[in-house]
Amino acid sequence: MNFIAAIQQRWVSADTMVCVGLDPYPERFPSHLKNHPDGIFEFNKAIIDATQDLVCCYKPQFAHFAALDALDSLKRTIAYIKNTYPDVPVILDSKRGDIGSTASMYAKEAFDIYQADAVTVNPYMGIDTIAPFTHYQDKGVIVLCRTSNPGAAELQNQRIDQTPLYQVVAGLAADQWNDAGNILLVVGATADEEMRQIRALTGDMPFLVPGIGAQGGDLAAVIAAGMDSTGNGLIINSSRAILYASEGADFAQAARQETELLVQACRQEQRRILANR
Amino acid sequence: MNFIAAIQQRWVSADTMVCVGLDPYPERFPSHLKNHPDGIFEFNKAIIDATQDLVCCYKPQFAHFAALDALDSLKRTIAYIKNTYPDVPVILDSKRGDIGSTASMYAKEAFDIYQADAVTVNPYMGIDTIAPFTHYQDKGVIVLCRTSNPGAAELQNQRIDQTPLYQVVAGLAADQWNDAGNILLVVGATADEEMRQIRALTGDMPFLVPGIGAQGGDLAAVIAAGMDSTGNGLIINSSRAILYASEGADFAQAARQETELLVQACRQEQRRILANR
Repeated sequence: MNFIAAIQQRWVSADTMVCVGLDPYPERFPSHLKNHPDGIFEFNKAIIDATQDLVCCYKPQFAHFAALDALDSLKRTIAYIKNTYPDVPVILDSKRGDIGSTASMYAKEAFDIYQADAVTVNPYMGIDTIAPFTHYQDKGVIVLCRTSNPGAAELQNQRIDQTPLYQVVAGLAADQWNDAGNILLVVGATADEEMRQIRALTGDMPFLVPGIGAQGGDLAAVIAAGMDSTGNGLIINSSRAILYASEGADFAQAARQETELLVQACRQEQRRILANR
Repeated sequence: MNFIAAIQQRWVSADTMVCVGLDPYPERFPSHLKNHPDGIFEFNKAIIDATQDLVCCYKPQFAHFAALDALDSLKRTIAYIKNTYPDVPVILDSKRGDIGSTASMYAKEAFDIYQADAVTVNPYMGIDTIAPFTHYQDKGVIVLCRTSNPGAAELQNQRIDQTPLYQVVAGLAADQWNDAGNILLVVGATADEEMRQIRALTGDMPFLVPGIGAQGGDLAAVIAAGMDSTGNGLIINSSRAILYASEGADFAQAARQETELLVQACRQEQRRILANR
């Protein structure tokens, strides 16, 4: 099954649009894992076991492992999810982008070495940086469109004639780059007005939505802006707010509670909007 | 010494603007290294030993190591250069870009884990993706501006009012992002007209120039367009044309010859242009 179909199935079968982002900060681990020789993997495993029925996917973030020289833990975390919970897809969040021959190497990195089901990519270098990823037709290719960070607008909201750059990217992604039908977009939760416009341009293309929680995005506004025609359409990521809900021995249980709250809040907004459609 | 000063010193002391890009393709290695247990490192070491007096820096490309699950070879290659030829700086070409907290992790990856002297970064997400890198004041931060690939113009030449996006990026990099004076730009050799305009906007900011050789850039046009006020200003990268000049046992010697030809061609153009200034 391809990535988008797997996500759509989770939206329905598990009734959740929540994605848990796996960003290890060992200084925030409970004390028994802080100096554990395999602490990063054990932390992730506990979070995954505690939340797997509540998520539509997981999203490990590459840099958080790379900065700790812990890429082996990244690989084993993804393998653990795929072996133990094969219905739950994994996004490798690494925001790659390079000339075609090099982009092919990054596609191998994501899909062959780390066995991810999807990867985030940066569109600044154009189509030849995207095509080597979309060539893997069963994989998801999640193109940065309008990101959630404070500086996002600096380039992304610059206007080409009347059209902001993020809409140019959304248009290219929907109309020109998507021959294999496996592109998704990153649209930040801090930009719900932009999200509404991107939804209008892209039909039911799924969006990966960072920026809920620590970054301050408004969940109700996001769901209202981004919901697709089927009542789903979003992969709503939360990382730190879930992972570090407790820094004590009960961290996994606290992560589950926090995830459940987010899932319930999403469902409530979805039901409310669908009832008014 | 900071990265830009180290490059400027190499331009003068070694009289070379050439950078050798380290992109391992084991299938193109000579037969004795193809199945060698440490073939990637041994190949790089031989190339480095054969060319170190002819280069202003080296540029290992991250994806080529990551796709081979050979990041340990990347780390050891950089360590080898720094220990053996400490005057020759190293650019980690990984084109990173993410929200601020994650960009900090990528800066750690490049500068702490891999011990690179400079790193390439992608500007699509704006200033908060750049600042965590420039915070390392002795390091070089090389921002993608106008890249060398065929699809580069798709976004980078889109016009904001009358100004193409790559010039917006060049202006931000020169005027707003560069408090620490450690930013450089990527300007592809396949875009010499754009390079001329970027040079006009950025004073003597150094450019990393990919696209000579396999990608087809014109050396004379590039040097004419990009030379700075001192007669240098460019880091002219060549990877495959040098690394695989011979795929036989004489590969290192052939790489040296190819590098020497490029160095001499650069010097000739520099002299010619300076004589006519």
